[in-house]
Amino acid sequence: MTHPIPPGTRDVLPDEMRELRAITERMRARFEDAGYGEIHTPALEYEEVLRRGEERAAGARYRTFDEQGNVLALRSDMTIPIARVVATRYADVEPPLRFCYFARAWRAVDRGVGEPREFLQGGVELIGIPPPEAEAEVLALTIAALEEAGLRRHRVGIGDGSLYRRLLGALGVPAEAHPALLECLSRRDLVELDRRVAGLRLADRERELLVRLPELRGGRRVLEGADGLVGDAVHGLRALHELLEECGVGDRVIFDLGLVRQLGYYTGAVFEVYDPAVGFALGGGGRYDELLGRFGRQLPACGVALDVQRVHLAQAAEEALGG
Amino acid sequence: MTHPIPPGTRDVLPDEMRELRAITERMRARFEDAGYGEIHTPALEYEEVLRRGEERAAGARYRTFDEQGNVLALRSDMTIPIARVVATRYADVEPPLRFCYFARAWRAVDRGVGEPREFLQGGVELIGIPPPEAEAEVLALTIAALEEAGLRRHRVGIGDGSLYRRLLGALGVPAEAHPALLECLSRRDLVELDRRVAGLRLADRERELLVRLPELRGGRRVLEGADGLVGDAVHGLRALHELLEECGVGDRVIFDLGLVRQLGYYTGAVFEVYDPAVGFALGGGGRYDELLGRFGRQLPACGVALDVQRVHLAQAAEEALGG
Repeated sequence: MTHPIPPGTRDVLPDEMRELRAITERMRARFEDAGYGEIHTPALEYEEVLRRGEERAAGARYRTFDEQGNVLALRSDMTIPIARVVATRYADVEPPLRFCYFARAWRAVDRGVGEPREFLQGGVELIGIPPPEAEAEVLALTIAALEEAGLRRHRVGIGDGSLYRRLLGALGVPAEAHPALLECLSRRDLVELDRRVAGLRLADRERELLVRLPELRGGRRVLEGADGLVGDAVHGLRALHELLEECGVGDRVIFDLGLVRQLGYYTGAVFEVYDPAVGFALGGGGRYDELLGRFGRQLPACGVALDVQRVHLAQAAEEALGG
Repeated sequence: MTHPIPPGTRDVLPDEMRELRAITERMRARFEDAGYGEIHTPALEYEEVLRRGEERAAGARYRTFDEQGNVLALRSDMTIPIARVVATRYADVEPPLRFCYFARAWRAVDRGVGEPREFLQGGVELIGIPPPEAEAEVLALTIAALEEAGLRRHRVGIGDGSLYRRLLGALGVPAEAHPALLECLSRRDLVELDRRVAGLRLADRERELLVRLPELRGGRRVLEGADGLVGDAVHGLRALHELLEECGVGDRVIFDLGLVRQLGYYTGAVFEVYDPAVGFALGGGGRYDELLGRFGRQLPACGVALDVQRVHLAQAAEEALGG
């Protein structure tokens, strides 16, 4: 008789639990010292309310019914619930508002892909501050918190989450072709992207732009010499880089003009956190200036979420490498 | 536009969160010092696997489907998942085994009753030790952990979870009448119990026993002068009381011969944790000697689960009373 648990979930035994807790506590202490108060929200919410935050993500969630037949969904992140809390419990509180969380979230997985179905997220949300100041604060804090958690080699990739979408629009690429192209980009499947771009009715120069942009990845030099739409995006990222330099973390960031995040609510800069010791992202985030407005309180905002389990794996991998 | 959350769930804001965390950390430190290693298990499990632990409780859970159409259920406690972990991940480890947890669990609620749908449970499981040693260890630890969390007035009610069931059987009360009688008892509705017992075909002396037993509640003197089935149960409780006296917590316990717990897996002593400063139980537990066998590893076991939020309310209420 076996007693399986669902793929993408895990039993965490005491030795590992102690290590995960140590990481959580160090990160939390760093967030709280910086003025980010911890919030907890229910795991089950009305699906209709979560949908106000993000239509697309709501469909992928685990749904159930309450005793009255209302549809409940397991949260798939903490950004939407915190936006709801800000609009309701903090409706009369002057911004800026700073919150952190350490909470489990759930996402649908394909069997076999090995993606987690349940994961422990630790993150921050900074509400009410425009770019690039909020981005700089959140990224400097993220880098410091990971250092507190024992990482030394971690880096943050920074892109503009709306750039590629706007570019597709400006070039007149039909809207129905966008999702597949963005999907290639978010999977970093540049071969497939190339194939799909080749099939679009565009001038050679335009196709070239769509294929080359995602390859622009590196330090500050990536931000030089661009014009048009790309020039506008790069202008904002340059200002962010200056602030990060002032915070002493300018050398920890990688600009990546092909970076897009799967969630639909990002409106500006997007982030992805890496560690060269492991082959997966530790987390990510970005600017979401429209999400709070959907709950009735129009405020700019920016946040990062880290997968604590992956942070732990990265820390162990760094140690193994003599990090 | 309002953005409600389901009845029985809560948003926890930073001030309260800090206090809940302080309680959690103090209780966990006490559990770990006593050799109880913390375990985490997935919130979503296969319903079929959870059902192996307890048929009745499984029906009340929130159910959803995975991508292959399997039924998943949100755990309603941590005792069944830990029994599963012991039978699988610790299959070859010699008992005794000691585990603790701090995890959310979910239960169905009736709207209007004001019961929590999601709650944070902290508890311990002691596996492989027979009565009354395990009960004494678990109860002394529970009392100490609550003291660590700031409580001073807390008490533990102790009963025999199978006594009333066995008594009903011995008196020949038809099995179909048992659930309603046990339900009255677990709600402590002695008026309704009286009414139902009056309708049973029994001798006056037998009816008297069924109605008086739940009224036997108090210190060690409750355990004196009983005979028959009640005498056997009382004998075990007397041995437990002696051990608790040795641990210096004999004066913190109340014997309660009408105590039954709703969950079906308790086979011996049952516990309920109170604080006179608040009108609700802070948690409970008991002995469950058959649960692990259902997962293929026959071991006696005993545990307690506390509702951390209620512990917090009790602590605040004690403070308000000048506790």
